[in-house]
Amino acid sequence: MKAKVRILDIETGRFLAFISEEDAKNAKLHPGDLVKIETAKRTIYGDVVISKTINPGEIGVTKDILRSYTFSEGEVVNLVPSETPESVRYIRRKMNGQKLKKVEIEAIVKDIVNRKLRDIEISSFVTSLEINGLDMDEIAWLTTAMAETGDMLDIDRKPIMDVHSIGGVPGNKTNILVVPIVAAAGLTIPKTSSRAITSAAGTADVVEVLAPVTHSLDEIKRIVEKIGACLVWGGALNLAPADDLTIKAERALSIDPRGLMLASIMSKKYAMGSQYVLIDIPTGEGVKVEKVEDARSLAKDFIELGKRLGQYVETAITYGGQPIGHTVGPALEAKEALETIIEGKGPGSLVEKATGLAGILLEMGGVAPAGMGKKMAKEILESGKAYEKLKEIIEEQGGDPNIKPEDIPIGDKTYTFVAQTSGYITRIDNKAITAIARAAGAPEDKGAGIMLHVKVGEKVKERDPLFTVHAESGTRLDQAIIQARRMEPIRIEGMVLQRIGNI
Amino acid sequence: MKAKVRILDIETGRFLAFISEEDAKNAKLHPGDLVKIETAKRTIYGDVVISKTINPGEIGVTKDILRSYTFSEGEVVNLVPSETPESVRYIRRKMNGQKLKKVEIEAIVKDIVNRKLRDIEISSFVTSLEINGLDMDEIAWLTTAMAETGDMLDIDRKPIMDVHSIGGVPGNKTNILVVPIVAAAGLTIPKTSSRAITSAAGTADVVEVLAPVTHSLDEIKRIVEKIGACLVWGGALNLAPADDLTIKAERALSIDPRGLMLASIMSKKYAMGSQYVLIDIPTGEGVKVEKVEDARSLAKDFIELGKRLGQYVETAITYGGQPIGHTVGPALEAKEALETIIEGKGPGSLVEKATGLAGILLEMGGVAPAGMGKKMAKEILESGKAYEKLKEIIEEQGGDPNIKPEDIPIGDKTYTFVAQTSGYITRIDNKAITAIARAAGAPEDKGAGIMLHVKVGEKVKERDPLFTVHAESGTRLDQAIIQARRMEPIRIEGMVLQRIGNI
Repeated sequence: MKAKVRILDIETGRFLAFISEEDAKNAKLHPGDLVKIETAKRTIYGDVVISKTINPGEIGVTKDILRSYTFSEGEVVNLVPSETPESVRYIRRKMNGQKLKKVEIEAIVKDIVNRKLRDIEISSFVTSLEINGLDMDEIAWLTTAMAETGDMLDIDRKPIMDVHSIGGVPGNKTNILVVPIVAAAGLTIPKTSSRAITSAAGTADVVEVLAPVTHSLDEIKRIVEKIGACLVWGGALNLAPADDLTIKAERALSIDPRGLMLASIMSKKYAMGSQYVLIDIPTGEGVKVEKVEDARSLAKDFIELGKRLGQYVETAITYGGQPIGHTVGPALEAKEALETIIEGKGPGSLVEKATGLAGILLEMGGVAPAGMGKKMAKEILESGKAYEKLKEIIEEQGGDPNIKPEDIPIGDKTYTFVAQTSGYITRIDNKAITAIARAAGAPEDKGAGIMLHVKVGEKVKERDPLFTVHAESGTRLDQAIIQARRMEPIRIEGMVLQRIGNI
Repeated sequence: MKAKVRILDIETGRFLAFISEEDAKNAKLHPGDLVKIETAKRTIYGDVVISKTINPGEIGVTKDILRSYTFSEGEVVNLVPSETPESVRYIRRKMNGQKLKKVEIEAIVKDIVNRKLRDIEISSFVTSLEINGLDMDEIAWLTTAMAETGDMLDIDRKPIMDVHSIGGVPGNKTNILVVPIVAAAGLTIPKTSSRAITSAAGTADVVEVLAPVTHSLDEIKRIVEKIGACLVWGGALNLAPADDLTIKAERALSIDPRGLMLASIMSKKYAMGSQYVLIDIPTGEGVKVEKVEDARSLAKDFIELGKRLGQYVETAITYGGQPIGHTVGPALEAKEALETIIEGKGPGSLVEKATGLAGILLEMGGVAPAGMGKKMAKEILESGKAYEKLKEIIEEQGGDPNIKPEDIPIGDKTYTFVAQTSGYITRIDNKAITAIARAAGAPEDKGAGIMLHVKVGEKVKERDPLFTVHAESGTRLDQAIIQARRMEPIRIEGMVLQRIGNI
């Protein structure tokens, strides 16, 4: 059936094809049926919606589709009921515990991207992976299939370095220091980051306080070939687009199958053309990988996967049992990172981690002798060369390179929690800190977040300030205070935890 | 957030809540987010759609929701972002291979029905069941939970019998004979049937040729308490409503986890208050349960499940390797069933199966001595008492009780396939027959279908007619002919199947 495109000002979170009752009847289509939407150039798929507001001969296309594909008002497309995707058979093979072939994995990924597979099939695939797993062959095939069904970058400035932190540690603004240090040493590092999904601030949210992070792949190529680095939002690019759809299912189910996690991370590095990749695996209470043994096993998998992809991968198992630095939330973190890079020094946990990771990258890239990377990274940070490089990045990405920490607006509705007793700080709860910062409005409200006045191991006296909540509105501040009172974000040794009474 | 309901003339196949951009921004809601829609009386869930056509303060509700729940234009509801459903944790427990508790299964089913769980979670549950299975405790809990989250019937006329055929055999109009025979013997049998999903005609599609099949539960109670039987469409009732949603996922994935199949069938019998249930399990090539061993194992499960539900269950393993009777398609089957019940005799496969099943029910219900059921069923059929009861059913359901077989309109576009060789019929392919009948327009076109002139074991001469395709339009007839030529619906022994040439 031929139909004229009508653009609908509607966002649904999925690909929907609105058609008239008359056309639905003639084509024997029912609400929710899968249809193929064909043009000369491409084929995508959508779910049928039957609407009285659509005229016969029209197909209403929502903004969700336009975000990925171009359609113009009045353009003629061919609408065909879709057969059951062949790739469903391969998903069933994984359900049955079989090893998939390369072509089967490629078919599944292709059908995820063009939306021939929908929530039901994607969720079944993800669930089957959670239960039956993938071996390293399958993970490598999945990784390249995910990269190759999206855009890929070809930067003419080698060697290309990359760094990725497995999530979960609040306040992790480390890469805002690592990237300028590495680029200042002459290496190329086209860093893409994500926004917060469940955290209080993703690296992209933090960088955005300093400069725009949404850039096209062409723009990124230009910037990186000019100055050797960028700090951009990966979500604006069409990198490994299947990932967004599998992540949607993983999040709804609160699962994170190992093979899919590896493929998700490495497919983006592969698409960016990265040759040397450093994976930072924080461990400790309240992060994704809590135990060091698990981190080691994961590290082994990353290295092995890298080999199959032709990438040299190293991993760093770092301490993630408490927030990094003293700030959590986009503006607070941007301010702390900027202060540290300007002064060439700052909170130990931030500087140590940043120069440690940068040092490994300098050694991997061959600009520092073995064992000398961290020292060199520290020198670059202290010399101001890292700050100069960050200014270049800010400028090329369209920000003000002369921005000062004090220019950054922080939420002015504040509340400070104080110690109820004297003692040593024995624990700062990552999950509680994140929950409080989010209740305060982070990451949407850039100025919202938490300033920590203490870190684990420090001694406090009764009434000493522990942390300050910043919010942009009184309502949000109140919500954060309620959240903080419900939890125990900071524990002081010697505190009576619970008094039960005489027994 | 309070919002006024606006009814949208849109059908989407899911529960969607249309809101304005402004409200979405204020409530921090994104397209696809789950929201709770609360009124004083009930809580349901929907996916957020952001639309320019909706005014701030309004919520657009689609017809999909109205089919299950009443909302009036302008009614004020409370719209709240939904937390992650607790039942997702129980789905994860099944993913991990654990046995679920009764309360956990109840929570999952409840959340499926009120749409708090969506395609992603339901598909994950179904996939986990396919991989990790359910034990008999879990199946029984699932069955009662599915029944109790829907409407239940309480008929004051005992004992209540029921019969169910596991699908897959084309031409299975058997129950149109079984139900009147059983009711004519004084037993109560409130039979609900489904429409065709992948077959050429469901029992409800066939009965509808004789009388309306869409009735309310109150109406069914009235009819059954008056005449002891009905032949209605179960889909019009709110019986075990979770089933439609799990079936959607099962169909998309082409899986049919054993525990879910048992619960799906038995939850509806439980909701109808059935005390004695006969399960017909056809076996043979091209049906759901191909092997007799599998049928036996399934039979054991049905009986065991019945015990836990307080139902007495028997099973009949029947031959389903070829179509039943000579007709496939709603009108053709209705005609054959009506002819057979009027004359008291007809095609062997139909009469033998119908009286066999009815006989078991007569013995189960205590109106026939052991071993005498089939004989009694045959007498009821031959005496015309079954026909009298069918007339009562047709009349009470609003049809014309005096309808004659020749009154039933059959598709008048026909094409007859003839034997290419002489020999014995060795196979009639169920799947091919179904595919051809569907290509001819069944079940939507009531008059479309197939008339078989031969059955397995019969002898034919070259040019003898094998089967006639009936369609309501020339286009459909052509499609059916193409489909028939592609397949080998009827095989004759001695036929050269494929000539390869000299080797």
